[in-house]
Amino acid sequence: MPSLNDATRGRILYGGDYNPEQWPEETWLEDVRLMKDAGVNSVTLGVFSWAKLEPRPGERDFGWLDRLMDLMHENGIGVVLATPTASPPPWMGHLHPDTLPVDQDGRTEWWGGRQHFSHSSATYRRYAAAVTEDLAARYGGHPALTMWHINNEYCTYDWSDEAAVRFRGWLQGRYGTLDALNEAWGTAFWSQGYGDWAQIHTPRHAHYLKNPTQVLDFKRFTSDMLLECYVAERDIVRRATPHLPVTTNFMPLWVGQDAWRWAEEEDVVSVDLYPDPRDPLGAQNGALVQDMTRSQARGPWMLMEQAAGPVNWRGVNHPKPRGLNRLWSLQAVARGADAVCYFQWRQSRQGAEKFHSGMVSHAGEEGRTYQEVKQLGAELARISAEVTGSHTANDIAVLHDWHAWWAGAQDGRPSTQVDYPDLLRAWHRALWEAHLTTDFAHPEHDLSAYKLVVVPQLYALTDAAIENLLAYVRDGGTLVSGFLTGVADEDDRVRAGGMDARLRELFGIRTLHEWWPLDADEHVECGGFRGTLWSEEIETSEEAEVEAAYKGGELDGLPAVLRKGRAWYLSTLPEPDAMRDLLARVAAGAGARPVLDALPAQVEAVRRGDLLFVLNHGRESVTVEVPGTHHDLLTGATVRGEVTLGRYGVAVLKP
Amino acid sequence: MPSLNDATRGRILYGGDYNPEQWPEETWLEDVRLMKDAGVNSVTLGVFSWAKLEPRPGERDFGWLDRLMDLMHENGIGVVLATPTASPPPWMGHLHPDTLPVDQDGRTEWWGGRQHFSHSSATYRRYAAAVTEDLAARYGGHPALTMWHINNEYCTYDWSDEAAVRFRGWLQGRYGTLDALNEAWGTAFWSQGYGDWAQIHTPRHAHYLKNPTQVLDFKRFTSDMLLECYVAERDIVRRATPHLPVTTNFMPLWVGQDAWRWAEEEDVVSVDLYPDPRDPLGAQNGALVQDMTRSQARGPWMLMEQAAGPVNWRGVNHPKPRGLNRLWSLQAVARGADAVCYFQWRQSRQGAEKFHSGMVSHAGEEGRTYQEVKQLGAELARISAEVTGSHTANDIAVLHDWHAWWAGAQDGRPSTQVDYPDLLRAWHRALWEAHLTTDFAHPEHDLSAYKLVVVPQLYALTDAAIENLLAYVRDGGTLVSGFLTGVADEDDRVRAGGMDARLRELFGIRTLHEWWPLDADEHVECGGFRGTLWSEEIETSEEAEVEAAYKGGELDGLPAVLRKGRAWYLSTLPEPDAMRDLLARVAAGAGARPVLDALPAQVEAVRRGDLLFVLNHGRESVTVEVPGTHHDLLTGATVRGEVTLGRYGVAVLKP
Amino acid sequence: MPSLNDATRGRILYGGDYNPEQWPEETWLEDVRLMKDAGVNSVTLGVFSWAKLEPRPGERDFGWLDRLMDLMHENGIGVVLATPTASPPPWMGHLHPDTLPVDQDGRTEWWGGRQHFSHSSATYRRYAAAVTEDLAARYGGHPALTMWHINNEYCTYDWSDEAAVRFRGWLQGRYGTLDALNEAWGTAFWSQGYGDWAQIHTPRHAHYLKNPTQVLDFKRFTSDMLLECYVAERDIVRRATPHLPVTTNFMPLWVGQDAWRWAEEEDVVSVDLYPDPRDPLGAQNGALVQDMTRSQARGPWMLMEQAAGPVNWRGVNHPKPRGLNRLWSLQAVARGADAVCYFQWRQSRQGAEKFHSGMVSHAGEEGRTYQEVKQLGAELARISAEVTGSHTANDIAVLHDWHAWWAGAQDGRPSTQVDYPDLLRAWHRALWEAHLTTDFAHPEHDLSAYKLVVVPQLYALTDAAIENLLAYVRDGGTLVSGFLTGVADEDDRVRAGGMDARLRELFGIRTLHEWWPLDADEHVECGGFRGTLWSEEIETSEEAEVEAAYKGGELDGLPAVLRKGRAWYLSTLPEPDAMRDLLARVAAGAGARPVLDALPAQVEAVRRGDLLFVLNHGRESVTVEVPGTHHDLLTGATVRGEVTLGRYGVAVLKP
Repeated sequence: MPSLNDATRGRILYGGDYNPEQWPEETWLEDVRLMKDAGVNSVTLGVFSWAKLEPRPGERDFGWLDRLMDLMHENGIGVVLATPTASPPPWMGHLHPDTLPVDQDGRTEWWGGRQHFSHSSATYRRYAAAVTEDLAARYGGHPALTMWHINNEYCTYDWSDEAAVRFRGWLQGRYGTLDALNEAWGTAFWSQGYGDWAQIHTPRHAHYLKNPTQVLDFKRFTSDMLLECYVAERDIVRRATPHLPVTTNFMPLWVGQDAWRWAEEEDVVSVDLYPDPRDPLGAQNGALVQDMTRSQARGPWMLMEQAAGPVNWRGVNHPKPRGLNRLWSLQAVARGADAVCYFQWRQSRQGAEKFHSGMVSHAGEEGRTYQEVKQLGAELARISAEVTGSHTANDIAVLHDWHAWWAGAQDGRPSTQVDYPDLLRAWHRALWEAHLTTDFAHPEHDLSAYKLVVVPQLYALTDAAIENLLAYVRDGGTLVSGFLTGVADEDDRVRAGGMDARLRELFGIRTLHEWWPLDADEHVECGGFRGTLWSEEIETSEEAEVEAAYKGGELDGLPAVLRKGRAWYLSTLPEPDAMRDLLARVAAGAGARPVLDALPAQVEAVRRGDLLFVLNHGRESVTVEVPGTHHDLLTGATVRGEVTLGRYGVAVLKP
Repeated sequence: MPSLNDATRGRILYGGDYNPEQWPEETWLEDVRLMKDAGVNSVTLGVFSWAKLEPRPGERDFGWLDRLMDLMHENGIGVVLATPTASPPPWMGHLHPDTLPVDQDGRTEWWGGRQHFSHSSATYRRYAAAVTEDLAARYGGHPALTMWHINNEYCTYDWSDEAAVRFRGWLQGRYGTLDALNEAWGTAFWSQGYGDWAQIHTPRHAHYLKNPTQVLDFKRFTSDMLLECYVAERDIVRRATPHLPVTTNFMPLWVGQDAWRWAEEEDVVSVDLYPDPRDPLGAQNGALVQDMTRSQARGPWMLMEQAAGPVNWRGVNHPKPRGLNRLWSLQAVARGADAVCYFQWRQSRQGAEKFHSGMVSHAGEEGRTYQEVKQLGAELARISAEVTGSHTANDIAVLHDWHAWWAGAQDGRPSTQVDYPDLLRAWHRALWEAHLTTDFAHPEHDLSAYKLVVVPQLYALTDAAIENLLAYVRDGGTLVSGFLTGVADEDDRVRAGGMDARLRELFGIRTLHEWWPLDADEHVECGGFRGTLWSEEIETSEEAEVEAAYKGGELDGLPAVLRKGRAWYLSTLPEPDAMRDLLARVAAGAGARPVLDALPAQVEAVRRGDLLFVLNHGRESVTVEVPGTHHDLLTGATVRGEVTLGRYGVAVLKP
Repeated sequence: MPSLNDATRGRILYGGDYNPEQWPEETWLEDVRLMKDAGVNSVTLGVFSWAKLEPRPGERDFGWLDRLMDLMHENGIGVVLATPTASPPPWMGHLHPDTLPVDQDGRTEWWGGRQHFSHSSATYRRYAAAVTEDLAARYGGHPALTMWHINNEYCTYDWSDEAAVRFRGWLQGRYGTLDALNEAWGTAFWSQGYGDWAQIHTPRHAHYLKNPTQVLDFKRFTSDMLLECYVAERDIVRRATPHLPVTTNFMPLWVGQDAWRWAEEEDVVSVDLYPDPRDPLGAQNGALVQDMTRSQARGPWMLMEQAAGPVNWRGVNHPKPRGLNRLWSLQAVARGADAVCYFQWRQSRQGAEKFHSGMVSHAGEEGRTYQEVKQLGAELARISAEVTGSHTANDIAVLHDWHAWWAGAQDGRPSTQVDYPDLLRAWHRALWEAHLTTDFAHPEHDLSAYKLVVVPQLYALTDAAIENLLAYVRDGGTLVSGFLTGVADEDDRVRAGGMDARLRELFGIRTLHEWWPLDADEHVECGGFRGTLWSEEIETSEEAEVEAAYKGGELDGLPAVLRKGRAWYLSTLPEPDAMRDLLARVAAGAGARPVLDALPAQVEAVRRGDLLFVLNHGRESVTVEVPGTHHDLLTGATVRGEVTLGRYGVAVLKP
């Protein structure tokens, strides 16, 4: 199978979405000049070009794209060619209202924005396949073409009648019989027993709480329908160019897509990454997405979109201070990216995203943004050969599963304060602040290579996943889990005892009497630290060690942190410093060590292949101890024992 | 007519909703064992069983219910049998979309939750009647049957076309002629004059403020349509079993149902009660609902639903600390409950309410919840004979009327900060904290038995109600009223002068110049206390006494508290301590005394029949003076002069 | 053309909306007595009388209105007669659902409120024309008639299918060809190219950001459709009574109406003005609206609606303290009003606005409200002859344009904290607090008469407007502009460089690198003051003077206030005191002076004709220096050198 290496060929891909159809052709020549000055070697064409390629149903206008493909090729710039199917032309909704999605309140999503396509619409799928076929036929052999990009940020839901028809088919595939569905959905509750498949709908606006398993299955169905759309287009381009890799770009931690499952269908895993430049945890949030994407890719991956400056969809859209774009781009390379790309090359002057920055901003060539882009291009070229294709194993895995998220994130739960991505971030942050680098893994993955496995929260677990965790610990692994793990099975059926009996046995929990969720501003004293968000009334079994206990209140003396052998359980969420110290201690016990010792806060160190990346996320200069002698690939300097990094400074050290 | 006594027969009913159709039949046997251990003597069956009873239109499956009725009878457990009409099976909405409610924005409320029935749908009513007929025919003679429970928590609105047809009919019944309707609705304003009944709609989404009397009548209509649904089913079961009582369960202080009117149609008044265990005023909120339910029942009543632990519909769902379930259950008994029941017996493992607790929680028999349930069952059995059927008169009545609430709680009013239930709670709290026990009454009820009548706020009053209040004071009663009382008549027509002239005369108000509502964080000094929420620019008549006056500001010297003889008027809402002291003073003047003198805060004393309940709502032990000698029915101890109550402790004292 | 003078004839119009159809005819006689006592000389009849005038389609009932017109005439009260078209009768929506507006989510706006008409409905327009024709024919010659009032507060949007048809027609008129539309809307972005006019819709609910130029044009279209409705009715009454002025009432600073354009179609510009009596800036907000209305009228104008007491549409509706109604009414006269009118004469007892005050409140004749109304009527009569028709030129103009607002106030912009009306208020406030009186002007108006032109924010500017500003400065004018000015052209196309090159040249900006919007609670130090809301990374050209620079942070040393000759640019929003001082300094430099020197805060001075109005907005008495000798028209006193004003006191001084 083709891979990212087939596109990079030893060079970090540098470039971005290029939408020249918004500009007169004379601008194209300036673009090429600026791209070459900046070291741009890859552009993505055609992402939102459907109306241009197919101005009327069945017509084709390829001339402009022919000229662009040739122009790129003449200038040594590779093209990632996109199928344009994320935004159908106005004529489609007009002629075929069945292609428009409908929300759970019955509102049509009209054209005039983007992504106004129903994943379930046979009409949409037919048009999408046809334009993909023609693109593949015309450009499959073009020498500029390096990769295919299918659609863009798949993210639509649909509660329409046509979606309901497909939902029924999907459910028949999952359950076979109505009896099995009624059993799985628990329809005996509230008189919801289905007597005919035709009675089943997408979970639309209801008087009160909806059936949670119906909602869960609708999320699964949505991910699968979008995946069907992707696979259909992928198969078309793959037939035409079996040697070229295919990708589609994920939104980081987007709730609607089971990216573990999707990644299996991609040659290249790519992601769009937009941390808030003002967020004090922006770097850590970036690291989390990078770790997750690398884990899905099982190796190098593609940073498909980032912003050279501000975005336009936050409440207040802060620009990137001088140096931050370089810092965060090199952080991505450190964590496995072999492509550093942007939305978009040249900032638009019209349309809904004209205040989203570009590599060339409104200020143009003279602007600070482009000047920094140019500097970064040169630096990436300097390190490309040493970087591309390389990979490093980590000792720690953080478990994550969309199905557990989907099952747990519903109405009618113990606490609306519990937010799955927040918990994932809190646990990853603790490891990141302890300078421990991590992978992500699915709970049914082979975990035997890890010294420590971390479970922020897996509300729903299959039996296979539970057995996997038990085997991992039995075979010598160290496991640490947060609360609300193993509560339900894959149908969102609560396990007897409120938590799976095998897991209770693993952690030393005899009886889980009650959950005691905490109010937003509440905390519990745990003797040395404070717990937030949650607490539990647990009766322990004899073998269990209470590593930290609640002090005062109704839970006085009960375990906040519980351990039985190598299995740790947290019944609360310690405040960040305590969480960092606790995980550092557990990791040390498991034999997992930080990348470097004695790293200052705000400095991140990451190994990739034999390289050591050291990144200063602070605005103050800092000196970092680095044992031994290294060569800094960025400056050419020799580094002995320590390296000094200025504000947002980076060293890429080779032994 | 049958009454609650026909079901209790001297035993406090103890049990809850039982939904065995969610469990395999082997679990039923365990249920029976645990029920008997816990002293459960009553279960409610069938509340949400329609799809099971009628799996296809017109079919019946009674076998499972036959077995359960027999099983209960064999084990000495009475059955409250429910009609299943609160949640139609999926086939109904599928075959008959006209049975689905439509909201004011035109959105259909689909099946997949519960209560997706239109109260106005003839189709729904026909199916509901048929299944009720068959249930009554089959089980009317079953020896386990003790009571009928119609539907569940009636609470649906409907703006559909079929509802509009019924609304027109209801309006024709109320007004007779269009001229009378146009007059009552004030349609001369904003060009709303109706020329044909067919032009009248349910008050749907509009550009700006809706006609307030149309909205008021729609609320009346909704309560009446739901009542029609109730009465239709009640009449069916009554024909089959004229000797058995019938009930439906209210939600406490639910805005949509005129419970005074509904209670007249019930043999047993029952309520669902879920104070927040974390609410510092949870006990008082419970007391309020209990006082209101007892007043509607005019005697003993049924606590149909409470939670043994947490619920699942708050933002953060706190469990009940040890002892709280017992304390609040005995509080209900003290205030007239002859039935202490729960939703539900066994916590569900599937469906939308699986995180709502049960008498048997996910932790099962070993769980703290069941263990406390078992203890309480034994204690209730100990006091049953002395308690059931008994009643105590109170000296104080708090007036409450849904129509006044409906009329006043609309858009376009002087202040959105004024909230009717909040005011009701604030006034009841003041009395509760002064250890004064109260009834609730409707403003047209006979009030002659009361020494003090309290009006938190009755924005709209009929002439009959006004004359009733005048007569009450004329005949020697003491009346104390809050602001915004008597502003409008029953059509929401403002009375001349902004407040009924007779009431102004009663309280000594010559001219009500302006209302001065206060901002959320604003207060007015009243000389010794602070007023909140509201103030008024009043010119008094000569006979009036200014009991407290505003200090400073625009209203300096004007009355905050006004009295003319035995009629008191508050033009602001004093802060809680001042409110408590003021009402205590007024009550003392009227001859109404606390249950016990010198009661500590957090201790509640309530008389029922010849028993004295003393309840400690605090977590600290407390000693309470109780003059004379009593026998504590719970402990068997003799109490002389004082009793000591531990955390959440209760004494049930018999002289 | 007729003007306001034709209605005033030397008397300030005093009165209000009169809705006698809500009252029995005996009340009419009391109304007349009270009106005459209060000096009321003008009432507006018929605003919401359609259902009364046309009870069934095509029928007419004029009898009641005949009697009222005669009654008014007999008592010397002039009538402003309204077309009733703001609230169609229920029969219209019932018979013609096509007359009802539809919102962007597809929800119909039903009757039962008001303004439930689609501006695009041919049916609605036909009925509206017919009733207007008949009114004009019947009352055109009535001696009581002084003016026509068309509709009321035009403010409806419509996304319906019929609106879409008209929108297409409007777009064809604007663009001529689809190519021009595609170019203007930038449809190359996100695949939005239109191939047929029929594909174009009103901008309905979409998955993500809508096309901003489509949204902008929809706002223009809405203003124009409403204007078509107005003009159609105006033309009908003008044909009948060419000698009588015609108006419609604006809501102040309402976003949906380009009032510059509308004012051109009115004989009298009128406005409804409701500052919050509790707002510390209420007087300044009033002044802003008065300045804007006078500028639109280019002379005297009509205060069509204000409240004598509280309104009923705020969260908390505060009454007016004693004296405030008089103070704010005289403030309006000072700033050019020749009519002081209210909604409404007598407070309604029924309907949606019965808690909106009237000149006669619920408290009636004895109420403080009416007593103050009566006093004010006498005072207005005293000054009428000296005031009506007179006008004063100002040295300062504040630029304002609805199209710039519409273009800038969209989703997907740099900061949601930037609010156009807030900026307008902040700049006007600074001038008001510096005692500088101002006009408003459109950016394409002739500005040559002004010494200082102020641009709070004009995000989008046409080339003509830019050339106008350049010429103004070139010819010696002083210009001061806030940030985000000149960013886009009239199609919302971003100008190269992020700000028009001519304006950058004007202000001395070489490169605008990045916008740095500030968070809600953030500020930047500027050396002596703090900036809020916004900051910028600017590289200046050589001729520019940095008048104030950022201190610290990423922008250290860059310009917060920039000047090149007479052109000033603010890249942040200084806090209020600094803004006031800065504009006072700039104004002084430009030769614009305060009305009086050494005025205390809270005292406002305004010249009108040869009169000097001095208004004390404070609750404390204050003495104000007034050079020379004046005659106070209100008291008859002679004022030499200084005048003392009590709480809310006013002097109207004639030299």
